[in-house]
Amino acid sequence: MSQTVEKIASCDPVWSYIRRDALEMAAKEPLLTGVLHAVALNHDRLEKAISYHLAQKLGGPLMNAMLLGEIFEEAFDADPDIGSAIRADIVAVYDRDPACTSHLEPLLYFKGFHGLQCYRIAHWLWYHDRRPLALFLQNRISEVFGLDIHPAARIGRGIMIDHGTGVVIGETTVIEDEVSLLQNVTLGGTGKESGDRHPKVRRGALICAGAKVLGNIEIGECAKVGAASVVLADVPSRCTVVGVPGKIVGECCENPAREMDQSLPGC
Amino acid sequence: MSQTVEKIASCDPVWSYIRRDALEMAAKEPLLTGVLHAVALNHDRLEKAISYHLAQKLGGPLMNAMLLGEIFEEAFDADPDIGSAIRADIVAVYDRDPACTSHLEPLLYFKGFHGLQCYRIAHWLWYHDRRPLALFLQNRISEVFGLDIHPAARIGRGIMIDHGTGVVIGETTVIEDEVSLLQNVTLGGTGKESGDRHPKVRRGALICAGAKVLGNIEIGECAKVGAASVVLADVPSRCTVVGVPGKIVGECCENPAREMDQSLPGC
Amino acid sequence: MSQTVEKIASCDPVWSYIRRDALEMAAKEPLLTGVLHAVALNHDRLEKAISYHLAQKLGGPLMNAMLLGEIFEEAFDADPDIGSAIRADIVAVYDRDPACTSHLEPLLYFKGFHGLQCYRIAHWLWYHDRRPLALFLQNRISEVFGLDIHPAARIGRGIMIDHGTGVVIGETTVIEDEVSLLQNVTLGGTGKESGDRHPKVRRGALICAGAKVLGNIEIGECAKVGAASVVLADVPSRCTVVGVPGKIVGECCENPAREMDQSLPGC
Amino acid sequence: MSQTVEKIASCDPVWSYIRRDALEMAAKEPLLTGVLHAVALNHDRLEKAISYHLAQKLGGPLMNAMLLGEIFEEAFDADPDIGSAIRADIVAVYDRDPACTSHLEPLLYFKGFHGLQCYRIAHWLWYHDRRPLALFLQNRISEVFGLDIHPAARIGRGIMIDHGTGVVIGETTVIEDEVSLLQNVTLGGTGKESGDRHPKVRRGALICAGAKVLGNIEIGECAKVGAASVVLADVPSRCTVVGVPGKIVGECCENPAREMDQSLPGC
Amino acid sequence: MSQTVEKIASCDPVWSYIRRDALEMAAKEPLLTGVLHAVALNHDRLEKAISYHLAQKLGGPLMNAMLLGEIFEEAFDADPDIGSAIRADIVAVYDRDPACTSHLEPLLYFKGFHGLQCYRIAHWLWYHDRRPLALFLQNRISEVFGLDIHPAARIGRGIMIDHGTGVVIGETTVIEDEVSLLQNVTLGGTGKESGDRHPKVRRGALICAGAKVLGNIEIGECAKVGAASVVLADVPSRCTVVGVPGKIVGECCENPAREMDQSLPGC
Amino acid sequence: MSQTVEKIASCDPVWSYIRRDALEMAAKEPLLTGVLHAVALNHDRLEKAISYHLAQKLGGPLMNAMLLGEIFEEAFDADPDIGSAIRADIVAVYDRDPACTSHLEPLLYFKGFHGLQCYRIAHWLWYHDRRPLALFLQNRISEVFGLDIHPAARIGRGIMIDHGTGVVIGETTVIEDEVSLLQNVTLGGTGKESGDRHPKVRRGALICAGAKVLGNIEIGECAKVGAASVVLADVPSRCTVVGVPGKIVGECCENPAREMDQSLPGC
Repeated sequence: MSQTVEKIASCDPVWSYIRRDALEMAAKEPLLTGVLHAVALNHDRLEKAISYHLAQKLGGPLMNAMLLGEIFEEAFDADPDIGSAIRADIVAVYDRDPACTSHLEPLLYFKGFHGLQCYRIAHWLWYHDRRPLALFLQNRISEVFGLDIHPAARIGRGIMIDHGTGVVIGETTVIEDEVSLLQNVTLGGTGKESGDRHPKVRRGALICAGAKVLGNIEIGECAKVGAASVVLADVPSRCTVVGVPGKIVGECCENPAREMDQSLPGC
Repeated sequence: MSQTVEKIASCDPVWSYIRRDALEMAAKEPLLTGVLHAVALNHDRLEKAISYHLAQKLGGPLMNAMLLGEIFEEAFDADPDIGSAIRADIVAVYDRDPACTSHLEPLLYFKGFHGLQCYRIAHWLWYHDRRPLALFLQNRISEVFGLDIHPAARIGRGIMIDHGTGVVIGETTVIEDEVSLLQNVTLGGTGKESGDRHPKVRRGALICAGAKVLGNIEIGECAKVGAASVVLADVPSRCTVVGVPGKIVGECCENPAREMDQSLPGC
Repeated sequence: MSQTVEKIASCDPVWSYIRRDALEMAAKEPLLTGVLHAVALNHDRLEKAISYHLAQKLGGPLMNAMLLGEIFEEAFDADPDIGSAIRADIVAVYDRDPACTSHLEPLLYFKGFHGLQCYRIAHWLWYHDRRPLALFLQNRISEVFGLDIHPAARIGRGIMIDHGTGVVIGETTVIEDEVSLLQNVTLGGTGKESGDRHPKVRRGALICAGAKVLGNIEIGECAKVGAASVVLADVPSRCTVVGVPGKIVGECCENPAREMDQSLPGC
Repeated sequence: MSQTVEKIASCDPVWSYIRRDALEMAAKEPLLTGVLHAVALNHDRLEKAISYHLAQKLGGPLMNAMLLGEIFEEAFDADPDIGSAIRADIVAVYDRDPACTSHLEPLLYFKGFHGLQCYRIAHWLWYHDRRPLALFLQNRISEVFGLDIHPAARIGRGIMIDHGTGVVIGETTVIEDEVSLLQNVTLGGTGKESGDRHPKVRRGALICAGAKVLGNIEIGECAKVGAASVVLADVPSRCTVVGVPGKIVGECCENPAREMDQSLPGC
Repeated sequence: MSQTVEKIASCDPVWSYIRRDALEMAAKEPLLTGVLHAVALNHDRLEKAISYHLAQKLGGPLMNAMLLGEIFEEAFDADPDIGSAIRADIVAVYDRDPACTSHLEPLLYFKGFHGLQCYRIAHWLWYHDRRPLALFLQNRISEVFGLDIHPAARIGRGIMIDHGTGVVIGETTVIEDEVSLLQNVTLGGTGKESGDRHPKVRRGALICAGAKVLGNIEIGECAKVGAASVVLADVPSRCTVVGVPGKIVGECCENPAREMDQSLPGC
Repeated sequence: MSQTVEKIASCDPVWSYIRRDALEMAAKEPLLTGVLHAVALNHDRLEKAISYHLAQKLGGPLMNAMLLGEIFEEAFDADPDIGSAIRADIVAVYDRDPACTSHLEPLLYFKGFHGLQCYRIAHWLWYHDRRPLALFLQNRISEVFGLDIHPAARIGRGIMIDHGTGVVIGETTVIEDEVSLLQNVTLGGTGKESGDRHPKVRRGALICAGAKVLGNIEIGECAKVGAASVVLADVPSRCTVVGVPGKIVGECCENPAREMDQSLPGC
């Protein structure tokens, strides 16, 4: 078996770490051993673990967990990029959240991570002509995890949505790779007209807790939006914007999404 | 059957649209066909569909879905105005939310709409001498949908609560017809004294995402409260207030609740 | 039986009030009689009622309610201070929330109270070498109640978390006795470095709805943080801070956590 | 209210007894008060109580209780004879089962009674062009109550199926009024040919525990089939048949279905 | 810990064996590790394990598992003889059933054992003035396990009910210690008159599969009733009775309940 | 798509019939459309449909449906013979049961069929060194379907277990191909000694309702055991045995398992 473990480690290090973490946790807490086997150790790849764990959370009287699990696996089989994005997201959370001490924790417990991965399935359904099902998933994600992400939104990889409760991401939003969002962030529209009406968040940006970014505006690369701020206009790269309504208060660190520093130098 | 459909259409257009939408969706997505029949097509009026769908969401180990469904129907039978308000709310969501493309979607999927309709039942119970049950519903609405609306609050018709998560509406709040609220809005009190201590929101007002309106103050007709703003004093009709604490920054459009424009001209 | 009632009343007045309230409510609403007996009247002490009621809310496919109930009781038996803190919290809610008209309501219905008590169990597990289980509870609290409280945080007694949805309390936070928090409050960190990085909230402070308090800063005794404000620096005792970013705008009343007055004199 | 009670008593004595029994039991056992209100006291007629109680038992992941309840009510509304048969069955059980001390017990607890009433709904569906749904109910009755009654079978009123587990009643069976069956009774076919191939059981007959009656044969009026006996040929009225294969051993009492006497005089 | 284990072993060998078996099984099958900890290893005595495991099986929408668990524990605390009887039953099953290879299996898996232990709780309720609850349990035992045992029946210890499905035991039945029953056995009445009307089964008797013993008759010590036989008259000690109706065909072995030999020497 | 259908039809006619039947039923009963898609139409092979449908029935608080579904699929992937046996069983039921009018019905609804297929998984686990899990399945099959089949028993293909309730099949039983059993049949042991102690039922035999076949005896090819009979000695091929205890009463038809004729010529 050690050979197998080595082989997994070389070609899928995230899954290898998760399995190692699960074995350690199983040894430590017998009441979770069964859960850890069922979620992680019983499966041969991360995608199966995600399907198993999240389909159970989304399942309910309208659509049961098993059927949802099959939909998850259909998406994973059809588009391997989803699996890559999930791995990048796990690494992002592990790197950026000091309270996260293993690669297993996002998979098992982090609601923002859970909501984001379920969105990735809904997104795939939306662009494969199954919009009713995509909307169904959007509703369940909102009920179960408290995040309302429209399935048509386009979200990159290496994303961290910390805590997650209250996050709203609108239909024409674009989020590039390596972005971090915190709880209660809104990426919203500005009016009842349809069309492209939601923010474009560039690589490396950090949107702090409770911030509202509204309209088809651009949050530049590695920009930072301060907590509880309201942004209604473009924010240039590497700038920090703060206030209601938000004003540019200075530059920010090299890589705010990674630093996760919600403090506001100069305020 | 076409005659029946015509008859429904003439006397209850909202229900007629919902059934048409449900038939279309059922034809498109077989995995939802059963759900659509059970929720919408199997029922002869909208109230039954609401009872069926929302009682299932609120049901749990303390009170099962069937009993809750009977309470819903008791309220609908006793007070036909609830049904009228629901229809006005569906039209409001359909008109104002560009991501909503059918009259069916609010009924099936929109958490803010779900929470509001469950509140309407709790409100009826509160004023018909069944306060313990009203408080029970308030708790379940908060657990399941993430909205905390006191059953004693008075809320008009044609209301849109977009996304819904984190909304708090206090005991002596009054919301007139045609108002729109977004996620994380608080209509709260200012102290531990009882009595009339919550906002009065007049017809046509728009309260943007994350705004806190606190105390027995008046948000005038067609006024707008900017996102993440805090309002502690009366806002005159057709004015826009922004900031923490909020200041009047100008007039607003003819009908902000309908326009749903969270942008802040002049900011 | 009246002797028993008197005896309970003298040594555990909170539990005595709850039982009296439950009898009254049971007489008024037959559909809740079974619930009230099962939650309150069937038990001989408050801790059992809490275990029964909250374990059922947290139970799910990964860990069932009965097992969770046993974990709750293990913690209650090992550390009687948890029960004292719960009683102080119930009194705090009853005293401070004008919409709360009995000692029974927090136990039965208040999500902020529920999340806080479940955190108390997770906290006990965290400091008794059962961190995996503590993290499991944190996840369930976040899913079910919408509060994300790290089990390592240290929280005193006589705490009121009103409404609760969206509250986030980080790993190294300290909250002293007699503090009040409202919905959507964040007590968060400022960066990806581990170590002591979260706020210290002193006795009697009030953190209003949607406020974000970020970093290892001190909110002084009986200080007040205004709604939707962002605080990034120490706030002296008895001061009120408002705005994004927050500024000191004046003193505040004798005991803001008790007064629950979110208004901002001088704004 | 006493007038209403008198009115119910005069026009629907069975329902009146059940409500009286439920009030008595509710006063005696607080843990069942909620159940008794939800099942019996909260409803204005017996049919609603049956729908509520049995639909919850039959509900599951393939079809939820609320939808089943609506199907039950549709049948009750369309065919008032079902309600009459239910009342006659309750009286039959109360009269014949010495362990049954109230009219409430069959409604609440008796599995044979439950399976029989669910069959009555399946039977109505079968003859109203909804055979797939009828077969679905047959399956659920078999899973939940352990009785396998084909929905096409024709069963009269005043029927008692005692205990119920293991009872099998085939497709072309006819059971007239006032018949009693015990656990593990089979009214089965004799071969793979379709057509009329199951027993005809005449009024007043008693089929004792474990008896197998096979083929298109007639069990005459007020005949008795002994326990664990096998009957392959017609049994004349008022005769007792015993053995494997069964032989006529004598006459039987006036009304064996009512006497429920499984003893075999002369054996 | 080994000291504790030794102490348990000396004073409660059955519980000690069960825990040892559970540890062995947990090591062998990781998917059951969580179950085994939750059912057996997490508890400090057998009664808690029984409460936990069986209350979960009986729980449902009318009464949840936690409340049932509390009722179980109330009975166990009040009457230690129930716990002794359970231990004797486990030993009986382990000794008599060659397919049972550990003391853990009856606790975990054997439906006849499960139904019997739940009856013991119902029986305690019946004789402690809580008849409605006792009847509720009788119904759930019948639904979940397929055994219908009246709570008023008196059943000794060291009882094995093998397989269990279809067993019916009437209200005034007495079963002494060390008796074995198999599936589909009826200990039934003979008529609609109340009073003492069910069998008395003496110590050491064996009632084989499908046998019907009817009326207030005596099955003597160490007597055997053959499979599918019908007994309507007293059977002397150590006799074997066979047939429909049953006839004495000879003596039987020393201890038929222990030998579990359903064969019929001389037939 | 018609090509695909043709291709399925040629290589897997049973699955092809089931899908055709499901389409027809879905068109006829909208309330079952979702179920039919989820169970049958959404899957690409019969094994997946079985896993989905039966794992949901067996799932519960100790082991959820999704995990059981994965175990089912593991067995199906490892041993294609299980799938062949299932197809033969479906054909057997369709051919022999006149109340069965489609190949879909056994899959959807027939409890004896369901229990048998779940046993096939338990059997595979038993002989692949996962006995604890095999015993777990045995228990769930007994609770959910009322059949108690030891996982070590060896059962051929083309088996029909009609109705199923109360069937018991012991550990060392062998059942060859093309056998039919009815409800309440016991294939049991004769004593507490371990070793080979259960019946061997040869090809084409029919065991009628309630029959008890006990001990390591042989039921010859195409033999028939009459209803409610007890067999304690070998039965030669093509013979019919009847009575308690059973006696040979004559020959039987060419193929009793197929004819399903429970009548007893000459009795």
